[in-house]
Amino acid sequence: MRRGLQLVVAFLAAATFLQAQDASKPAPSNVQGAAYPRINADQTVTFRLRADNAQAVTVNLPDFGTVTLAKGDGGFWLGTTSKPVPPGFYYYTVNVDGFTANDLGSQTYYGYNRYGSALEVPGPDSALWAPRDVPHGAVREQYYFSKSRSEWRRIRVYTPPDYDTNARARYPVLYLQHGAGENETSWTNQGDEAYLLDNLLADKRIRPMIVVNENGVVPAAVATPATVAPAPAGPPPPATPARGAGGGGMAGNTFAEFDAIVSKDLVPFIDANFRTVANRSSRAIAGLSMGGAQAMRLGLNHLDLFSYIGLFSPAVGNLDPSTAYDGRLKDAAAINKQLKLLWIGIGTEDRLYGGVKTTHENLAKAGITHVWHEAPGAHVWQVWRKFLTEFAPLLFRS
Amino acid sequence: MRRGLQLVVAFLAAATFLQAQDASKPAPSNVQGAAYPRINADQTVTFRLRADNAQAVTVNLPDFGTVTLAKGDGGFWLGTTSKPVPPGFYYYTVNVDGFTANDLGSQTYYGYNRYGSALEVPGPDSALWAPRDVPHGAVREQYYFSKSRSEWRRIRVYTPPDYDTNARARYPVLYLQHGAGENETSWTNQGDEAYLLDNLLADKRIRPMIVVNENGVVPAAVATPATVAPAPAGPPPPATPARGAGGGGMAGNTFAEFDAIVSKDLVPFIDANFRTVANRSSRAIAGLSMGGAQAMRLGLNHLDLFSYIGLFSPAVGNLDPSTAYDGRLKDAAAINKQLKLLWIGIGTEDRLYGGVKTTHENLAKAGITHVWHEAPGAHVWQVWRKFLTEFAPLLFRS
Repeated sequence: MRRGLQLVVAFLAAATFLQAQDASKPAPSNVQGAAYPRINADQTVTFRLRADNAQAVTVNLPDFGTVTLAKGDGGFWLGTTSKPVPPGFYYYTVNVDGFTANDLGSQTYYGYNRYGSALEVPGPDSALWAPRDVPHGAVREQYYFSKSRSEWRRIRVYTPPDYDTNARARYPVLYLQHGAGENETSWTNQGDEAYLLDNLLADKRIRPMIVVNENGVVPAAVATPATVAPAPAGPPPPATPARGAGGGGMAGNTFAEFDAIVSKDLVPFIDANFRTVANRSSRAIAGLSMGGAQAMRLGLNHLDLFSYIGLFSPAVGNLDPSTAYDGRLKDAAAINKQLKLLWIGIGTEDRLYGGVKTTHENLAKAGITHVWHEAPGAHVWQVWRKFLTEFAPLLFRS
Repeated sequence: MRRGLQLVVAFLAAATFLQAQDASKPAPSNVQGAAYPRINADQTVTFRLRADNAQAVTVNLPDFGTVTLAKGDGGFWLGTTSKPVPPGFYYYTVNVDGFTANDLGSQTYYGYNRYGSALEVPGPDSALWAPRDVPHGAVREQYYFSKSRSEWRRIRVYTPPDYDTNARARYPVLYLQHGAGENETSWTNQGDEAYLLDNLLADKRIRPMIVVNENGVVPAAVATPATVAPAPAGPPPPATPARGAGGGGMAGNTFAEFDAIVSKDLVPFIDANFRTVANRSSRAIAGLSMGGAQAMRLGLNHLDLFSYIGLFSPAVGNLDPSTAYDGRLKDAAAINKQLKLLWIGIGTEDRLYGGVKTTHENLAKAGITHVWHEAPGAHVWQVWRKFLTEFAPLLFRS
């Protein structure tokens, strides 16, 4: 290309860029320096990818829809959502000629059993979890040994801003779990847990607390060494597992393993290694979706450990309190006395809404005290972030 | 497909899988449950991806080579490296019809200015950074406010296993930097920094220390608000930036910014918020590649802050001690007195080897005391992990 033409092209590109400047900006979920995806002034979102020889390129946001990209110049494909994208966090994949992958312009978030792309569209609620000029806590990535699994396990632990300087203070602990296909990084990465808690604390809406995130997706069994017996026969798993596939966190067997991990290994480790208040009045367990089902079972199985239970859009539908959880809910008066809080929240557009509402109604009929919280929204992180801002202020008040 | 045929196919798949069982295993860098990439018994590596309608699929490992995949059944593409892959950590991308992306079977690591895939091939040296049944430190992800940038910045801080329980102890600090296109997560994620230090400490080879990782890729300037003046005109950056592109960490101007971040903001923050020994005898600065160049400049600019300097495969070639760094190396006797250690390591197959060796020779000629460490290997993480196991034991001995 000749120099003159280069200048013209540079000028046109600059003009386009300046025009675009006012109208659009990179998504905050992009990696440093990535210009796309871009959020436009009307809150539609534009994706741009390079795929020189592709025949078809789509971007797929399970909680929003599919965007078909069109081939432009220089091997780049471009496409904009047909309608504004409501504020929130959206997992997405790119599909190029049948290949499902990340957009390398995005940061990665563990969901659907993989580190994938996501789009964050800010909105009025984002102020709740936006980084503000307030004291910040720390998130520790830490390993501990689980005797029940015979393995080192990775957890994340949020400690409040004054944890290191206020060396004699002891803190209550919230055990907070993710959903199927996610892991111990999800509450801090896609849930903005740390910023959100920093803000609630700065606004004096919560008591300072430690928050612990484990990985609730426990493989069905510890792998048997190949020299002893072969693994169960079967074809290799698909390269792109579906959400929840392979997790099995809902099955009875693996639930029992997670119960043992938390109650026998994790809670004692946290109490031995952090300055906690080590009693049931200062322990809460909560989770979203699959993690909500786990929180309910763990909380009821271990009323000696926990006195607060939080269920965010939980996979706990059509509950019958007279038979569920080995009859642990049968005696309403006893449960009401033991639990300081049973909190259930669900989005009105959530696919689990009907079943969870029936659970709420059945609990109410059985006389089991609980907080019922309906809010707009589907089965998405935007709802769970807001639930945490509603739930955390109710904890550790007595 | 008829049921009978399904059974035959399932049987053949199972037989193939059982046969493969003894011969191959998923790479340790895969996400939980992902069967591919697989490391075979002969240390070749097999990749497998689904791309139903693709015309060409390759896997590209910049530090090894390209693997061309062949289309098999069910939309899957399969390919094996033509030779064994030496032990180490390999960034890789997948290219499908001109589209560059991740392999969703891999965990993601920040390098080349994006969160991309990588392949870990274990070998004898892996014992140095393998998780062992020893006390483990924690890695904190933490934010601090940088006055010189007017922004909250994210760092990682490794604290040794006894940091929380030994509440009166104070610790020396190593500031340890990544290379171009990487960030503050790279030393813990691809460098296995925490496990490696845990092991060295368990073997009594190092003194307990705090290790701090910052993001040395500083954009050229804080963005000016659009209402005041438009951002510099130019076309949007490419969707897939090249390694080091956009970083600019080597340019004089942005180096000055990183110098201010570390010396004015980071060191005071660490000393105020961690139990450090806050003097130059207990502070080291080291880095790899671009980070090595930054460590050398920062260390020499701030001899009041640092007394140990470590350069791992540094971008410091053909150094002339009589003129470099504003003459700070001119007086060999003075520098030798002030620096407790100047350590320079390089792989003999590194593309920077010649220039760095000349730097070493010029320093020797000028009478500047330093440790020169040559080892087999290229410009790769496997070498830098080993350099850390050589360098850390020499720190904080007097």
